Amino acid sequence: MTVNQQWLIARQPRGPLRPSDFTWRESPLEPLGPGMVRTRVLYAWLDPTNRVWFSRGSYLPPLVVGDVMRAVCIGVVEESNNPALQPGTTVTGFMGWQTRSTSDGSDLTVLPELPGLPLTAHFGLLSHIGLAAYHGVVDIGRPQPGQTVVVSAAAGAVGSLAGQIAKIAGARVIGIAGGPEKCRRITEDLGFDAAIDYKGEDVVAALRRLCPDGVDVYFDNVGGAVLDAVLGEINDFGRVVACGMIGEYDESGQGHVFTNLSNLVNRRTTLQGFIVLDHLDLVEVAYPRLLDWHAAGRLQYAVDVVDGLENVPAALGRLFEGTNSGKLIARISTDEGADAR
Amino acid sequence: MTVNQQWLIARQPRGPLRPSDFTWRESPLEPLGPGMVRTRVLYAWLDPTNRVWFSRGSYLPPLVVGDVMRAVCIGVVEESNNPALQPGTTVTGFMGWQTRSTSDGSDLTVLPELPGLPLTAHFGLLSHIGLAAYHGVVDIGRPQPGQTVVVSAAAGAVGSLAGQIAKIAGARVIGIAGGPEKCRRITEDLGFDAAIDYKGEDVVAALRRLCPDGVDVYFDNVGGAVLDAVLGEINDFGRVVACGMIGEYDESGQGHVFTNLSNLVNRRTTLQGFIVLDHLDLVEVAYPRLLDWHAAGRLQYAVDVVDGLENVPAALGRLFEGTNSGKLIARISTDEGADAR
Repeated sequence: MTVNQQWLIARQPRGPLRPSDFTWRESPLEPLGPGMVRTRVLYAWLDPTNRVWFSRGSYLPPLVVGDVMRAVCIGVVEESNNPALQPGTTVTGFMGWQTRSTSDGSDLTVLPELPGLPLTAHFGLLSHIGLAAYHGVVDIGRPQPGQTVVVSAAAGAVGSLAGQIAKIAGARVIGIAGGPEKCRRITEDLGFDAAIDYKGEDVVAALRRLCPDGVDVYFDNVGGAVLDAVLGEINDFGRVVACGMIGEYDESGQGHVFTNLSNLVNRRTTLQGFIVLDHLDLVEVAYPRLLDWHAAGRLQYAVDVVDGLENVPAALGRLFEGTNSGKLIARISTDEGADAR
Repeated sequence: MTVNQQWLIARQPRGPLRPSDFTWRESPLEPLGPGMVRTRVLYAWLDPTNRVWFSRGSYLPPLVVGDVMRAVCIGVVEESNNPALQPGTTVTGFMGWQTRSTSDGSDLTVLPELPGLPLTAHFGLLSHIGLAAYHGVVDIGRPQPGQTVVVSAAAGAVGSLAGQIAKIAGARVIGIAGGPEKCRRITEDLGFDAAIDYKGEDVVAALRRLCPDGVDVYFDNVGGAVLDAVLGEINDFGRVVACGMIGEYDESGQGHVFTNLSNLVNRRTTLQGFIVLDHLDLVEVAYPRLLDWHAAGRLQYAVDVVDGLENVPAALGRLFEGTNSGKLIARISTDEGADAR
């Protein structure tokens, strides 16, 4: 008898997600009903947006106690009563923190083959990560050659791609990241023109030094005090790409009093928020370009793989501490048939 | 000998503009140089944005001690060594708080005749006021029929036009204004669907009651706590028109801690700031429509005229207290030739 292993939500989290917010359950798999599809989960991605899903007013229904923890996953169809999804097909969808997921298949998307790339490239280079960076830079930020682009959380999965895409567009790119190693990585390995270590230097002073002609495009992954600092240096007709979490709270948990919001008017700034789920139709345009840029050595990505479903809640800590190096992914199970592609 | 009367800036203001921030000067007019134009100032407008002009990082060079106080004015050319501007021509430009203005004429725009309307209609219905309301609603806010539009400072010059234009576009329009008389005026006289008296009721509760389906477009004239409140109710793909002053400070002078900025992402909101000076090319499109709507009785405007240059600094108090009824305008001098048109 096959058992399904799951992490359920044990309580409404307060502050960052903690292992004690989840509870482990093992239960036998039910026989598969008519029209249904059973998927074996291969990879789950861990992301700061996981925390947002507990909030009312998020872009998805809020998670509640007793739910399987939500996650975007890659899986392989193991058993199917749906002729559109044959066993062995590699799919993506919100399968969650569990070893087996069952649905009618309407929530699953078949993944294209990526010759020469591991399955995890879907998460590190394509998928929501790649689409967010692509859409944010190419469609919203629209940097012109020679313009100055600032990216926050620049060593993160989206930020590192966004900065590299802005470089491909011919912009001068300044990344804001936490700590000397991340700053070294984005400048030396990823080709950013300069880095600001927000943990080690005054962001306002560094922006003024590194952006003497102001900031044309700000790709914002953090909100709060960093958003306020960049708004102080934004140029006329500047654009703010509001991606992912726009925090009104600083790391201390204190609300931030903005002092530069009036520049939204004075500098005729457009701030545009977006959720990548609204733009999945971009796959056809964005994926070939992202893959081409990667193949040409102009767009690097990194994944940081945690092994085993049992280790997932503890791994979240690295996410909120910012100690992961690359897109954090959990390997839930391996399968030579699907995984070796 | 003709004397020029002027209000000069006496000191850098702190808080709202006060009469003591200005000093009176009378001096004889110099003979007019080659290529120059002398204008007699008829009307000056008084506006909350006057205060913004003292700030660095505003959209115009900051005013400093010793400058003639800046104001958008209507004047009539009195003497001219510039063949393009003949005496008797009615013009508009930044002439300032003075009875005579001298320049090479490059800063002046000839005003079109408005058959059947007084000269002050340029300020109440057209000019920066009308263009700001038109551009903000028609080009940025773009409300669809049946959508919900919220306007702050709704009894003000721009806000009252913006709300009426949104009604013309078929939207449901809620105005936020201070005090029962302003709320009565925008609903009973100007056709707004409902009003929120921010001085007398909780804005968040009133928004939830009056906008049960959320807010699609917010025409923001105030920023701060009201912006934050409306962001709490903004719908997916909502639009914020950031017009004029977007305050980060409340009336108390305290910075506001925003709690709903994350909705800019969660609700995929676009916030766009603009300065009407960038859109003066809209005159050809907007003026005929504004005049037609006014002639058809669908768009009312109000002006509140203060008499005499000497009374201008004291009149500013009414602006910051919000006790003016309609666009506040100072009559600097009268001329039957120009004024009676």
